[in-house]
Amino acid sequence: MKYLSAENMVKLVNRIGIETLMTELAEYIKEDYQNWDNFDKSPRYAHHSDVGVIELMPTGNRELFSFKYVNGHPGNFNKGLQTVVAFGVLSDVETGYPLLLSEMTIGTALRTAAISALTAKYLANNNVKTMGMIGAGCQAEFQAYAFRALTGIDTLRVYDIDYKVSEKFQRNMADSGFDITVCKTGQDAVQGADIITTCTADKQYATVLTDNMVGQGMHINAIGGDCPGKTELHQDILKRGSVFVEFEPQSRIEGEIQHMPEDFAVTEMHHIFKGEKQGRQNEREITIFDSVGFALQDFSLLRYVYDKVREFDIYEDLDIIGELDDPRNLFGLLKN
Amino acid sequence: MKYLSAENMVKLVNRIGIETLMTELAEYIKEDYQNWDNFDKSPRYAHHSDVGVIELMPTGNRELFSFKYVNGHPGNFNKGLQTVVAFGVLSDVETGYPLLLSEMTIGTALRTAAISALTAKYLANNNVKTMGMIGAGCQAEFQAYAFRALTGIDTLRVYDIDYKVSEKFQRNMADSGFDITVCKTGQDAVQGADIITTCTADKQYATVLTDNMVGQGMHINAIGGDCPGKTELHQDILKRGSVFVEFEPQSRIEGEIQHMPEDFAVTEMHHIFKGEKQGRQNEREITIFDSVGFALQDFSLLRYVYDKVREFDIYEDLDIIGELDDPRNLFGLLKN
Repeated sequence: MKYLSAENMVKLVNRIGIETLMTELAEYIKEDYQNWDNFDKSPRYAHHSDVGVIELMPTGNRELFSFKYVNGHPGNFNKGLQTVVAFGVLSDVETGYPLLLSEMTIGTALRTAAISALTAKYLANNNVKTMGMIGAGCQAEFQAYAFRALTGIDTLRVYDIDYKVSEKFQRNMADSGFDITVCKTGQDAVQGADIITTCTADKQYATVLTDNMVGQGMHINAIGGDCPGKTELHQDILKRGSVFVEFEPQSRIEGEIQHMPEDFAVTEMHHIFKGEKQGRQNEREITIFDSVGFALQDFSLLRYVYDKVREFDIYEDLDIIGELDDPRNLFGLLKN
Repeated sequence: MKYLSAENMVKLVNRIGIETLMTELAEYIKEDYQNWDNFDKSPRYAHHSDVGVIELMPTGNRELFSFKYVNGHPGNFNKGLQTVVAFGVLSDVETGYPLLLSEMTIGTALRTAAISALTAKYLANNNVKTMGMIGAGCQAEFQAYAFRALTGIDTLRVYDIDYKVSEKFQRNMADSGFDITVCKTGQDAVQGADIITTCTADKQYATVLTDNMVGQGMHINAIGGDCPGKTELHQDILKRGSVFVEFEPQSRIEGEIQHMPEDFAVTEMHHIFKGEKQGRQNEREITIFDSVGFALQDFSLLRYVYDKVREFDIYEDLDIIGELDDPRNLFGLLKN
């Protein structure tokens, strides 16, 4: 089994270049979504405790299988630990053997940004320039680069409830070439934006975007509302715009639309990527990507990483599977 | 995250000694079964294809979470690959961080043998000496050592449909101190045995044990019938004896009892380990452990291994989680 450590993931991303990576990864995601019907779409498995959740997110088609392990522990922050860590495995369906174990904390940020920007490429108006960002935490830089690579965004208006987080963002993006303005309110950040990305972490600030902040023709990329009880958008926005999701049954439970009636109309993005349905209807329409994070994006990320680690020869080998001279002689391993 | 490779698993087993290991591991399993009500008991996740299955088997309590990845690909044998490979992860529920990644191909054989022998210790008659074994494949040696460690079995009568497999068993056990007889039929192998272990792999020989082969007072350890469409015992045996299982809902689908009516009485082993129910009623009773392999045994194995790798200092470290100076600055990893 090939193994990509966190350190090697960093090497790989820097070697490819983050914008090239976003463009290439988006192609893998699009390709997998275009094969939507061939994928297993089981719900994620969740082990809940008082302080957090540990999840397994499996999916696969006839060739490859993947799963991601990911936790969510808001209280980790106060212990100096990450609130979300993740790793994933890609396997060969033909033999059942694992092919790749990869870190996916960075990987998850990459795939989340890639599908956000890919979706915006299909749904936003042409010639977008400015993105308003509410929330400048762990996802923010990845989102910014993905949007520049895929949609041409080059101007960022950023607001975070914690000013230090905005400063962190500015520092990380100092040599990025973006035109960046740090704003004092969310209202200010989204003023005149072509695209709005909401990406906040805390459950207690549940309405970071209200209807009056959203102008005609905007595309909203709603990342942070991704589990039951955690949403970011006021319901009036959902009613005014057209809502697009990854996988409807999951989004009805975890997404912004968890507050909406069951018959509230949404469109799954695979229809758009396949050209089966139209995305944006006109320039004035508000389009909303209600993103929750679906296992298929992780599959695409692992498939991409598996190709790239071999191309760039950046990986280690783990002998997690013992090699037997005779497949029926497992005990023989202990005798050598 | 600590990592135990296949090579280091071999080192660990040999360092502890396989019979000591079986005795200690059985204690961990018993302890976890005694805390039965605190464990999540979700069904396994399965990704099926024409040639095999890939499964994820998760469970956990308030302190620890585990899952096992395991495949089943009968056709791998003809490619010189193992039909079953496995690995597992143990995590800290408090933080969601993974603690241990371990090979579990050997691990699965260890935990299967340990619960078999532990169960027999509770259900078989006293002073057992002779075990008849039908099937001498990958599980056989592990079963033999576990039964000696936990029940005192020292005489083995072994039959396998493939004589070469019996020879492999004999070769592996040459210096084991067991009194071993290789038999020409299953009937011959179980003649006069105190315990019968059935552990065959092939679906097409579905009735390896018929009612006339089973004498009064025997304990039957039925390992091989462990998925829909794969059983080893004739139904008359189940009707004549008392059947014990790991987790009833799973065993009704995967175990020997899949052919029996829904109201066919079985007893879950945790009741026996907790002393809530009586196992064997009298010396003449036939007791049957209809084993399918439950996630809780994997949890116990990983918990045991995690303790032992630290005690014996046999492991490697994997930096699958990047260390952040500021938990909110994931992108900072790419800048260093």
